[in-house]
Amino acid sequence: MRHPSIPSAQLLVQYCKAMDISQVVISPGSRNAPLIIGFSEDPFFNCYSIVDERAAAFFAIGITQQLKQPAIVLCTSGSALLNFYPAVAEAFYSDHPLLVVSADRPPYKIDIGDGQTIRQDRVFDRHIGYSANLKLDVSHATKSISTFAPQMLPEGRSVTNIQEEIWEYNKNELGRAFDVLFQKSLPVHINIPFEEPLYDTVSSLDKYLDLSSGQKSTNEEAGDLSDFQDQWNTASKKMILVGVMSPGEIETKWLQSLADDPSVLIFTETTSNLHHPNIIPSIDSIIFPIEKSEDREQKFKELQPEILLTFGGLVVSKKIKAFLRNYKPKQHWHVNQHKAFDTYFTLNHHFKTTASKFLSSFIPGITKTSSNYRSNWLGVRDGYMGRRQEYLKQIPFSDMWAFEKLIQSLPKDAMVQLANSSTVRYAQLFDMIPGQSVYCNRGTSGIDGSTSTAVGAAVHYKGPTVLITGDLSFFYDSNGLWNTFIRPDFRIILVNNGGGGIFRILPGKENSRNFKTFFETAHHMNAQPLCELFGFEYHMASDKAGLKNALNDFYTRSDQPKLLEVRTPADLNDKILLEYFDFIT
Amino acid sequence: MRHPSIPSAQLLVQYCKAMDISQVVISPGSRNAPLIIGFSEDPFFNCYSIVDERAAAFFAIGITQQLKQPAIVLCTSGSALLNFYPAVAEAFYSDHPLLVVSADRPPYKIDIGDGQTIRQDRVFDRHIGYSANLKLDVSHATKSISTFAPQMLPEGRSVTNIQEEIWEYNKNELGRAFDVLFQKSLPVHINIPFEEPLYDTVSSLDKYLDLSSGQKSTNEEAGDLSDFQDQWNTASKKMILVGVMSPGEIETKWLQSLADDPSVLIFTETTSNLHHPNIIPSIDSIIFPIEKSEDREQKFKELQPEILLTFGGLVVSKKIKAFLRNYKPKQHWHVNQHKAFDTYFTLNHHFKTTASKFLSSFIPGITKTSSNYRSNWLGVRDGYMGRRQEYLKQIPFSDMWAFEKLIQSLPKDAMVQLANSSTVRYAQLFDMIPGQSVYCNRGTSGIDGSTSTAVGAAVHYKGPTVLITGDLSFFYDSNGLWNTFIRPDFRIILVNNGGGGIFRILPGKENSRNFKTFFETAHHMNAQPLCELFGFEYHMASDKAGLKNALNDFYTRSDQPKLLEVRTPADLNDKILLEYFDFIT
Repeated sequence: MRHPSIPSAQLLVQYCKAMDISQVVISPGSRNAPLIIGFSEDPFFNCYSIVDERAAAFFAIGITQQLKQPAIVLCTSGSALLNFYPAVAEAFYSDHPLLVVSADRPPYKIDIGDGQTIRQDRVFDRHIGYSANLKLDVSHATKSISTFAPQMLPEGRSVTNIQEEIWEYNKNELGRAFDVLFQKSLPVHINIPFEEPLYDTVSSLDKYLDLSSGQKSTNEEAGDLSDFQDQWNTASKKMILVGVMSPGEIETKWLQSLADDPSVLIFTETTSNLHHPNIIPSIDSIIFPIEKSEDREQKFKELQPEILLTFGGLVVSKKIKAFLRNYKPKQHWHVNQHKAFDTYFTLNHHFKTTASKFLSSFIPGITKTSSNYRSNWLGVRDGYMGRRQEYLKQIPFSDMWAFEKLIQSLPKDAMVQLANSSTVRYAQLFDMIPGQSVYCNRGTSGIDGSTSTAVGAAVHYKGPTVLITGDLSFFYDSNGLWNTFIRPDFRIILVNNGGGGIFRILPGKENSRNFKTFFETAHHMNAQPLCELFGFEYHMASDKAGLKNALNDFYTRSDQPKLLEVRTPADLNDKILLEYFDFIT
Repeated sequence: MRHPSIPSAQLLVQYCKAMDISQVVISPGSRNAPLIIGFSEDPFFNCYSIVDERAAAFFAIGITQQLKQPAIVLCTSGSALLNFYPAVAEAFYSDHPLLVVSADRPPYKIDIGDGQTIRQDRVFDRHIGYSANLKLDVSHATKSISTFAPQMLPEGRSVTNIQEEIWEYNKNELGRAFDVLFQKSLPVHINIPFEEPLYDTVSSLDKYLDLSSGQKSTNEEAGDLSDFQDQWNTASKKMILVGVMSPGEIETKWLQSLADDPSVLIFTETTSNLHHPNIIPSIDSIIFPIEKSEDREQKFKELQPEILLTFGGLVVSKKIKAFLRNYKPKQHWHVNQHKAFDTYFTLNHHFKTTASKFLSSFIPGITKTSSNYRSNWLGVRDGYMGRRQEYLKQIPFSDMWAFEKLIQSLPKDAMVQLANSSTVRYAQLFDMIPGQSVYCNRGTSGIDGSTSTAVGAAVHYKGPTVLITGDLSFFYDSNGLWNTFIRPDFRIILVNNGGGGIFRILPGKENSRNFKTFFETAHHMNAQPLCELFGFEYHMASDKAGLKNALNDFYTRSDQPKLLEVRTPADLNDKILLEYFDFIT
């Protein structure tokens, strides 16, 4: 097997292998040649070539999301690295262990007018778990170094000796970065300077990496819970709110146990991946009608919990956030292995462990409390669910009508990837079925990488993947389709309402005469040309019959991936959505 | 006229108007609604709506490049801002006064789990002239502030009083940012937090901006030049090397005067926008043959200047950089109003003024020196120019053959925008004609924004614009075409060699078995679907006759912009280019 001739490239490749990180997304370049050679020549690594770095990094997020392991995204020097930043921030707020690796010029070639050269070290400092800036190997390209940076080779010291120090320094820096990657599940950035020649190879490693076996992850115990259990047992209104969570993170038996308690109300979102008859999956369908009602003060107080227990990542519903900030619980406890946001300005405790570990300690010590808290609100839920069915029967073709049909149509073993932002909000109104898993980039809630993430996630999924997306997010990340890893069972449903329909729903927009241009950004594009470019089978529907018909065989096996464009009327969608909430009130 | 109701939004809009900054590129959002309203309601401002923030910021660079004035690029909160970063770095290294404005959440809503919220302040710190992080207005949304951040309204102080301080603070911060923008011609970032409601308007401003008239730019005098003139007059080998420079920056009379001196050798690049019979525009055609020759040591010493005088921005040719680093001049002086890079590790002096001011002081004090320095190398140049013509006659259809024809075909009043990286390198081999102006993003030399920059630049150009681009850069920045501002006289020539052909030219690549996948990233895409999507007339040529034919009426007036795709043979291009240098040796 061939290896790059540069020691720090050998070091990083060995380190990744030792840590069992095998997924490498590579954007092309020349400065990163030593690492491209290192990763792509070793069959241990699974390498993916993606040109647009923005898409490449979100693709890698899709992989970490599915494998729950770090994935590498590698680029060359210069602005290439900056294109990773949207995905780095998403990884930072969604706790994805994204291992960002950038090749750099030697330090003495920075800010002297060389091409493709920027200040790469610490460039993500605001949103990164750790930034490791490795040192340039002096044993490689010693002539260049002694010409341009003689201070790196002080007289009286041997190159071998200095190089040994550099190897140790680099190894230690990598150790710190990998600790953060595994233990905090945060993105880390490793920047490595390389001097030419970049393409030389050797047939055996110059130096083998010696690692004392490191601990890959911590998982703290929940600790003594008796105080919390006592409080829980004496409260008659407890709310559980679950944000973004992967399927299976809360075991069915624990969910069952909590859902059986009449004093416990469980709010989930589509992205929580939880299913039970006693939970409320459409938060806004509860809150919106209260906001509209005359005795809202009274009703909100009825809904206000004494204890709020939260799991998972970020919450989509703005309304539940506003409600809980105004009607604060006495106690807010958050369970998460890594971090806890004080989303409601009232966080009392952070259980720094997994949902599973916490519940296996917590539940045995709690008792069911008699209360009508749950039954009251489940009654309200049953009410809106009935009204929703009535409403759906009477509305014309629109985003809302289409979303119900689309979600009903999803294969029962599908992974569903939702784009931001109207897509994930519409999806909240309807129920997925157990067996389907749902994902959405809610760390930064951007529209910049939904497609790339879905494509990357699909690579490692057991069943078919369906991306549901809006037109702005789809065209924004069209480069997400520019790669050779899209599986034939990949499906895109593009709900094209000719612009940023979500802006029509926002309060206050009526005031702006420039609305169509600068908020909605109305357009007349369709996805057919991109399907042609990227090898998708294209389907289109623009009315009820057309959509039903298109869905009939949309999921049947095919040689090519498929895209279904659903064209909905921009001027109707927002009215129909807003009137729905009036209708169920 | 309507104004946003939020004071700091009113302040920024007034400030921009007072500073005569009228070009505003807007990416849609809700958090930035106060500024969208402020800019778009006032007819003073020329607003452009562009969805993809990466493309929007490069589009704004195109505007600054042409107008030589600041342009604003505005986005909403969250990862939107991070998509500006590639253009911010380009602006930083190319001295473009890009005014980046981001709307932010209130500080108390950051890192608590709200959607579309990141750490926006100081996010570009590594590549920005100034970061102004404005304070939240307390006179707006006072209720929210007193609920969530009561510390912002200390007891015993009136809201009016606190708000006045905030207004003054924000005004001062803006003042500092605008100083850097105008005086250093660097990008600056203004981050403004807004609390809801965001869409409210008022019919008259709450407070008028009072600005003592500021000095917009400095332009230092060259100072006492007599010492430098003395050195110049006694040296018999002086080299002038010009990097990226806008047309007209060096007046013809000064160029004439320098070019008349037999001891002065002038090296330019396509991007220098200079024309004279006594200059050498294709640097590599001089250096490459020397590198190959047996008496290279001798020839390089003959070429080595005593004094190197440089103008303009970054230099494309790697070969001249390598040569000057190895054969250092005794003196290196750089003329630039803002900064001087020590590109050759031998910078002795930075004349902090414009080329024009420097030359008008310098030239009257110098005399022509007798020398055969210029005549020798002009002789070499005439040699390679003859050999080049011979070579071009005998080569088959390829990148090199096509580039000659393409550059000959350009309208005489065209603005030519070159993409990175093989495009700008091929263009160096051929001569533009006076009247054509040439631009390329050489600050970071990225492929991430060439199309967007060209489209933005074209908006303000007097004649037609031609973008010459490669396939990777074209597909990378395809969102550069997603806007409504593309003029019908806009032309794209896409040289599609099915991958990153430039990597085939690099030394050492033969070593890599994975070359086609991870370096060249070979593909089979063509631009026709994108032309359909974005309303371009599509033309294609794949041989000599086809290309000649296609160019016949490619520049004739049309209702739509046009794209000409030139498909060249990937496996031939690099051989033909490398053999060219052998041929002229």
